[in-house]
Amino acid sequence: MSQRKLRLGAFIMATGHHVAAWRHPGSQVDSGVNIDHYIEVAKTAERGLFDQVFVADTPGVGFHGDEEAFSRQGRVSYFEPVTLWAALSAVTRHIGFVATASTTYEDPFLLARKFASLDHLSKGRAAWNVVTTSADNVHGNFGLDRHPDPASRYEQAHEFIDVAKGLWDSFEDDAFQRDPVSGKYFDPAKLHALSHSGKYFKVAGPLNLERPPQGYPVIVQAGSSEPGRELAAASAEAIFTAWTSLAEAQAFYRDVKGRLAKYGRRPEQLLVLPGISPVIGRTQEEAEAKWAKLQSLIHPSVGLNTLHTFWPDEDLSTWDLDAPPPYIPEPPPGRNSRAHVVLELARRDRLTVRQLYEYLAGARGHWVVVGTPQTIADRMQEWFENGAADGFNVMPPVLPESLEEFVDLVIPELQRRGLFRTAYEGRTLRENLGLERPVNQFSVKGRKVA
Amino acid sequence: MSQRKLRLGAFIMATGHHVAAWRHPGSQVDSGVNIDHYIEVAKTAERGLFDQVFVADTPGVGFHGDEEAFSRQGRVSYFEPVTLWAALSAVTRHIGFVATASTTYEDPFLLARKFASLDHLSKGRAAWNVVTTSADNVHGNFGLDRHPDPASRYEQAHEFIDVAKGLWDSFEDDAFQRDPVSGKYFDPAKLHALSHSGKYFKVAGPLNLERPPQGYPVIVQAGSSEPGRELAAASAEAIFTAWTSLAEAQAFYRDVKGRLAKYGRRPEQLLVLPGISPVIGRTQEEAEAKWAKLQSLIHPSVGLNTLHTFWPDEDLSTWDLDAPPPYIPEPPPGRNSRAHVVLELARRDRLTVRQLYEYLAGARGHWVVVGTPQTIADRMQEWFENGAADGFNVMPPVLPESLEEFVDLVIPELQRRGLFRTAYEGRTLRENLGLERPVNQFSVKGRKVA
Ligand SMILES: Cc1cc2nc3c(=O)[nH]c(=O)nc-3n(C[C@H](O)[C@H](O)[C@H](O)COP(=O)(O)O)c2cc1C
Ligand SMILES: Cc1cc2nc3c(=O)[nH]c(=O)nc-3n(C[C@H](O)[C@H](O)[C@H](O)COP(=O)(O)O)c2cc1C
Repeated sequence: MSQRKLRLGAFIMATGHHVAAWRHPGSQVDSGVNIDHYIEVAKTAERGLFDQVFVADTPGVGFHGDEEAFSRQGRVSYFEPVTLWAALSAVTRHIGFVATASTTYEDPFLLARKFASLDHLSKGRAAWNVVTTSADNVHGNFGLDRHPDPASRYEQAHEFIDVAKGLWDSFEDDAFQRDPVSGKYFDPAKLHALSHSGKYFKVAGPLNLERPPQGYPVIVQAGSSEPGRELAAASAEAIFTAWTSLAEAQAFYRDVKGRLAKYGRRPEQLLVLPGISPVIGRTQEEAEAKWAKLQSLIHPSVGLNTLHTFWPDEDLSTWDLDAPPPYIPEPPPGRNSRAHVVLELARRDRLTVRQLYEYLAGARGHWVVVGTPQTIADRMQEWFENGAADGFNVMPPVLPESLEEFVDLVIPELQRRGLFRTAYEGRTLRENLGLERPVNQFSVKGRKVA
Repeated sequence: MSQRKLRLGAFIMATGHHVAAWRHPGSQVDSGVNIDHYIEVAKTAERGLFDQVFVADTPGVGFHGDEEAFSRQGRVSYFEPVTLWAALSAVTRHIGFVATASTTYEDPFLLARKFASLDHLSKGRAAWNVVTTSADNVHGNFGLDRHPDPASRYEQAHEFIDVAKGLWDSFEDDAFQRDPVSGKYFDPAKLHALSHSGKYFKVAGPLNLERPPQGYPVIVQAGSSEPGRELAAASAEAIFTAWTSLAEAQAFYRDVKGRLAKYGRRPEQLLVLPGISPVIGRTQEEAEAKWAKLQSLIHPSVGLNTLHTFWPDEDLSTWDLDAPPPYIPEPPPGRNSRAHVVLELARRDRLTVRQLYEYLAGARGHWVVVGTPQTIADRMQEWFENGAADGFNVMPPVLPESLEEFVDLVIPELQRRGLFRTAYEGRTLRENLGLERPVNQFSVKGRKVA
């Protein structure tokens, strides 16, 4: 019997996942707009037999009022995801491409079209990370005074995905004869208008692009809010998530897998991929030293900026960085259990201001594992074999350096344990991920022609 | 003194510009979704030292009611232009990429972003063919019951371009320090919000992508209506146009160049590039035979479909193809002088139905030159040296075959005459076209920071 295998994605934050990565000598400082950097990274990921590379996205500049901290962050100028992956599709053969795009701010016809185009360009390697966009400084770029409220954003997301799927099905799989002799190019009876008219969108269709090689791109969802989980259960085939303990990750895994039945779906149709940011050393000491070095690169103004959420009314720049905060506030109300954990830790361990911001800024809320290839593989195996993960979204702290280390040191360890592939199994991303190619809804229902 | 040189673009209609190209053995039958085909074509154009490759675009399926003719046309499923060119940017080094996109149906922030991304990915080789979209079967894909009227489409286009230019200028050219030692990544004083609020768009900005290598992509306009010419005069740096006689082309050239002064622009800031579809033979006979072969591939239903506009109330399928039409109608009213020419020709030369539709369908309204490399070069030279063209939009009737012939046979002839480059002069498309890199409007005006 063939052993269940880990699914691995590489999370490509331009200079690396760590907030100060761009100051590290192992990073490429202008990588947000450096295509040669991305080519190198994608080829490294492909050499490591990763299923996919992933880019996060926000259609706007995230400025939060503190110009000093703002001027020191490396993520302010970067390629648009679908164009970036289109470029990389031409210089790679196996790796899948997950592009983030917003159902709140993009247009469904244009989005369906660009992802279908990417799937054709890459011969079946496209995936769409569906986000509803909650970041600041976006709505104004699209003529709105504020974001729509979360409930309607998610309602719109469901409708958006339905429309996109309908457009991707415009042509049946066998619509094209392309017979030069008879002069028949395609069969119009196998072309279907969508004629969608819903609460948020009115879209006639059909799409001017035949069905993507994968049927449609792999649908990904990222995040763990209640409506986010429900969206994932209804439509997603992979879910990216952020947990720092096995117990939390297990609870999440059970929860989302448990939601599938109500949509007539099976547990293996949704892959759960928690994030892991591995800091790799040949010894534990080397790994710890690497981490300490990275943490020390966080400029105080960047670090203090992450503490604002806890002390919104204080001028933190006057605080002594190497003493504990003057007081520890009550955690802000709401579902943000992470704030509880952080503030409780600060209180218990009497963390200094610097230690506290390093803890927060360095991890960005994700699971950081500092260790040897063996200990990192141990932790991944533990989560994988104990109902917490179907694989991981690997977030290299510094790019390209940390991804190369992962490929050279951790991948072979996972392979030795029989946890990871030694060659790509399929040609498309779906085939590699073990996901089925969806059936065309019109072939089934036989809806009316355009 | 260095001689004035021709600018050459290759018009890449998937299987070729001729309506029946896909039935020709020299074409790639599935080329609309075949990336290997486009890679081959782009590399051929680059080998020929073309300035640019160009794709036309409509965001919708052009179905006009005749299913029989519809099923026989090869242009129904094709890549989205910007993703296509992004892919090709990674496997080419010099050629420029002109992508068509609509100011009526795209969003200005997303469009500015994707073109900026393409310009960065290609290291300065992007161009935008600005169209307002008049094709049928598009508005419904974007929730509209009909196209906006032409006047407001063009008014919107002017505003759209202004917004896009403002977004491309978000970061001044020297905004990024990226100094790992000091920890300063960029200077927020050199980042500018747009805060645009106009008749059609409200866009806050800034764009989350630094200034494109070319300042902004080369702006192209295609078409010759009155408002189209005015848009070109105000903003475009190249104009694609369709004329079949030297006199018409000269009149157009004078007209658009004459409109520039009122926008404070010089004649050399707008390149006029008429279309030419060359059918190349080593002898005139060989060329004529090639053309006859292509014309014979036009299926009668496709051909008759092009005649509908003249005989809207007749069932043309009952007509004898090899006899003249039963009657010649009066040309339809309006500014369509081409209809006059066509119907007058039909009457004078007593063309058969087949001859008439071959004349119409084969050329698609563009200038077809059937001849040897020498005679084709003669005609190009004539237009170029007599105030009709700054260069040409070469429309190979069959792809990849006709482009290879052009590169192998006509380019050397143009080079021998000193009319065309023998090596690329610059690194960016602007440099090759001899167009200036625009100054950032915020560096000049010193507008307020984000
Ligand atoms: C690994 C990961 C990646 C994410 N990437 C993005 C992203 O690129 N863009 C985005 O707008 N949101 C992103 N999110 C955020 C979620 O989609 C979601 O908006 C967030 O978790 C807030 O949840 P809620 O909006 O459902 O309340 C990401 C979340 C995770 C866990
Ligand atoms: C060479 C050439 C290419 C064109 N390409 C496109 C195109 O890709 N998409 C489009 O919508 N219109 C295209 N047009 C049409 C024009 O932009 C314009 O819409 C058309 O000439 C009708 O003019 P009007 O809308 O200004 O009246 C093209 C025209 C020419 C001459």
